[in-house]
Amino acid sequence: MPLKKLDRLLGAEIQRIRFAKGWSQEYLAEVANLHRTYISQLERGLKSPSVRVLHQITIALGVTMSALLEAVEETLDADE
Amino acid sequence: MPLKKLDRLLGAEIQRIRFAKGWSQEYLAEVANLHRTYISQLERGLKSPSVRVLHQITIALGVTMSALLEAVEETLDADE
Repeated sequence: MPLKKLDRLLGAEIQRIRFAKGWSQEYLAEVANLHRTYISQLERGLKSPSVRVLHQITIALGVTMSALLEAVEETLDADE
Repeated sequence: MPLKKLDRLLGAEIQRIRFAKGWSQEYLAEVANLHRTYISQLERGLKSPSVRVLHQITIALGVTMSALLEAVEETLDADE
């Protein structure tokens, strides 16, 4: 099971959406009520967020958890 | 933001799929390589799993994370 890869792909997808909005990590952190360093660790795949925290982030980014994870799972499946 | 409600709905959805397969909490725990007490806490909405752990559970149950969370988000939205 590619667990670390999952974290990396999830972080990359969060970063991709953040970039598309032109947001800094600081700004996303503020809107999602999280720490900037946590967002940084998350985007680099160093942390696996709880579903609760993922929900805060996706609400901030204006996407659903299911849409975000669908993109992640597609990449994960394609690579397996 | 209905955080506790999210945990409760997620737990209920995991339990619903487990029941549909006729699996005990012990059996799901074994297949997902997790503790039975953890599955129990999760199903009651007392814990918010990491995405990594959610992935282990959904692989065990034979569903995708996105499909599971889509069902959760639909109920969450409908109640808001």
